[in-house]
Amino acid sequence: MNDFITLNHGSGGRASQDLIKNIFIKSFGDNKTVLSDSAILNIPEDRIAFTTDSFVIDPIFFPGGDIGKLAVCGTVNDLAVSGAVPKYITASFILEEGLPVKDLKQIVNSMAEQAKIANVKIVAGDTKVVHKGKCDKIFINTTGIGVFEKDYSYISTGEKVQINDKIIINGFLGDHSVAVLDARNEMDLKSNVESDCACLNELIQNALKADMRIKFMRDVTRGGLATVLNELAEIINYGIELDEKNIPVRESVNGLCEILGFDPLYLANEGKVLMIVNAEDTNNVIKILQKNSLGVESKIIGEIVSDHPKIVVGKTKIGGKRIIDMLQGEQLPRIC
Amino acid sequence: MNDFITLNHGSGGRASQDLIKNIFIKSFGDNKTVLSDSAILNIPEDRIAFTTDSFVIDPIFFPGGDIGKLAVCGTVNDLAVSGAVPKYITASFILEEGLPVKDLKQIVNSMAEQAKIANVKIVAGDTKVVHKGKCDKIFINTTGIGVFEKDYSYISTGEKVQINDKIIINGFLGDHSVAVLDARNEMDLKSNVESDCACLNELIQNALKADMRIKFMRDVTRGGLATVLNELAEIINYGIELDEKNIPVRESVNGLCEILGFDPLYLANEGKVLMIVNAEDTNNVIKILQKNSLGVESKIIGEIVSDHPKIVVGKTKIGGKRIIDMLQGEQLPRIC
Repeated sequence: MNDFITLNHGSGGRASQDLIKNIFIKSFGDNKTVLSDSAILNIPEDRIAFTTDSFVIDPIFFPGGDIGKLAVCGTVNDLAVSGAVPKYITASFILEEGLPVKDLKQIVNSMAEQAKIANVKIVAGDTKVVHKGKCDKIFINTTGIGVFEKDYSYISTGEKVQINDKIIINGFLGDHSVAVLDARNEMDLKSNVESDCACLNELIQNALKADMRIKFMRDVTRGGLATVLNELAEIINYGIELDEKNIPVRESVNGLCEILGFDPLYLANEGKVLMIVNAEDTNNVIKILQKNSLGVESKIIGEIVSDHPKIVVGKTKIGGKRIIDMLQGEQLPRIC
Repeated sequence: MNDFITLNHGSGGRASQDLIKNIFIKSFGDNKTVLSDSAILNIPEDRIAFTTDSFVIDPIFFPGGDIGKLAVCGTVNDLAVSGAVPKYITASFILEEGLPVKDLKQIVNSMAEQAKIANVKIVAGDTKVVHKGKCDKIFINTTGIGVFEKDYSYISTGEKVQINDKIIINGFLGDHSVAVLDARNEMDLKSNVESDCACLNELIQNALKADMRIKFMRDVTRGGLATVLNELAEIINYGIELDEKNIPVRESVNGLCEILGFDPLYLANEGKVLMIVNAEDTNNVIKILQKNSLGVESKIIGEIVSDHPKIVVGKTKIGGKRIIDMLQGEQLPRIC
C-alpha cells in the first residue's frame, strides 16, 4: 500500500481492490457486502427512514472529531430524530490525489468506531479519486436506513405540536462551530472547546421508549437553532417564544461570539436535538435525557405560543424581545 | 434566484431553501420528503438491495448524457444487476461556488427524466456548497433502495455459475469512455460516439421475469469488461474464455483505441450488463434482450471453462490466446 492516494486507487481495478481490502475491510469488517457495490439486507419492518448527507468539512480533523465521525453521526442523527432506529449506512468517498493514506485510515477508523457506538452497520461503499486540486482532501457521503418500531411520522411533520408545549435542547449550543473555527487556525482563538459531534440515537430512543408526549424532533446542525425553529414555525400555525437566558451556551463560546459578531443561535451543532414536548411531560423528559452523558445539560428553552403565529421571538437576557429570523446568508462556511 | 451558486446556497438557511424550492422541487416533484433530510418509505418486502455511488465525471456534460443522467442510471443499474427492482433514490450534491444555476437546472432535469424512465422516486436530498476551487463544478452521490420480488442473491455471488455457461453482453463496449474523452477536447478526436449511459432495469427485469437460468449479472463500468470478468473469476473455481472476435466494439472506438493504445476491454461503460447464462437458455435470453432498444446488439462473447481456473483468457482475432488481467492502474481518469 502506498503512503498517498493515487488516481489508480479510483480506477476500479487492482489498486481499488487493494484500497478496499487494506483500509475499508480492516475497519468496517470483512463481509461480502463491503466489497461489492450493493448490499442485500433483511428489513422485516414495513416502514423505514431513508436519509442522505454529504460531508465537506474543512479542516478534516478538529477538536472532538473528524470528518469520518461527523459523517456517521450526522446520518445516524437524521434517522434518529425521525423516530427511526438507525440500522444500515453506506459510505461513499471522494478522495483527492495525494491524500495521506494514514489520514484516510484514521478517518475510516473513526467511522467504524462511531458505527459501533451507534449500533449501525456500514454495508456498502464507493470510492472515487480526483486529480489534485479537484476536491479538498476528502468528501464523504453517508446514506442511512432506519426502521420504525412504532409509527412516529408525526415527529417530523410537527402535526401534533400545540400551544404551551415546551422546547427542550440537550445541551450547549455552538461548540461544533467554534471547535472547527479554532482548528482552522485562521484566527488565534484557542477556545479549548471541543465539537459536540456525537451519535444521539441512544439518547433519543430512551426518551421515545418512555412514552412521553414528544411531538417534534429535529437535529440542530448548520443554520443552528434559529433555522430549525423557523422551519418548525413555518409548518405549525403557532408562534415560538425562546427564553434566551435559559439557552445553554458555554461562556467561552459566548465570549467568542461577542468578539466575532456571531449569534450562537445560528451556530452549527453536530450533537444537539431539539424536542417539542407536552408541558406535563417536560420534567420527565429532561430527567430521562440527563441520565445520558449527551443530555446532562438538557434544558427547557422556550415554548409554543398563540401570539405571533409562524414567527420565532426571543426574550433577550436584558428583558427585551427580538424576532429570530432564518439565517439569511452563511455565517460560517463548511462546518459540516 | 441568482445566476450562479453562492456559498449561501449551502448554509442551511433561507438561500438553501430557495435552492430546494426553485430547483429541486421543480424537477423532482413537490413531496414533503424532498424538502426534508429524511424520507419515510413503505417497503412491504422483507429483502432489499442498498447501493451507493458518487459521481465526479469531467466534463459534466458529454455526448449522450451528463453527470445527472449518469448518477441516476449508475445507481439504478447497480440495483438492477443484483436482481432488485429499483424503487427509491437519494440525491446529494456538492456544488462549487460559481457553478451556473442553469447548469444545475439542466443536470437536475436530467436526473428527473431518468428517474421517470427507470420508475424510481428521488425521495431525499442534501446540498453542500464549497469555495471556488475546492471541488470540480459538481459532484453527485446517489444511493438507492431496490426490492426483491424473488430471492436473487445468487446473482451477485456467482455461486450457481458452472462450466459451459455462456457470457452475454448487451451491446458495444467503450462508447462511454470515448464520448467522455471526446468531450474533454484535449485530443482532437471527433469520434461522434455517444455515451451508452442508460438505465438498464427494464432490460434486466424482462430477462429475469422470463425464468431463464441467468446465474450472474454485473454492470460493466469503470475498469471495463476485463475487470468484471476478473472479479467473477476470483469468486468461481473455473476459468473464463472470451472470444474476442465476437465482442461488440464500434469500428470508430476500435480505431481510436489503436491510435491511443487503449484496450476496449478496459474502457468504462454506463449502459452495459454482463450476464452468465446456462448454455441451453442463451438463445432465448439473447432474443429477450434484443427486443429492448438497449439490447439490440446483445451477443455471446465467451464461456465458462474448466481450464485455467480463476484466469480470464481471450482468444484473439488472429487466433492466438492472451491472459486478460485486471486493470493495474488507471487507463482513463474520471469517466464515471
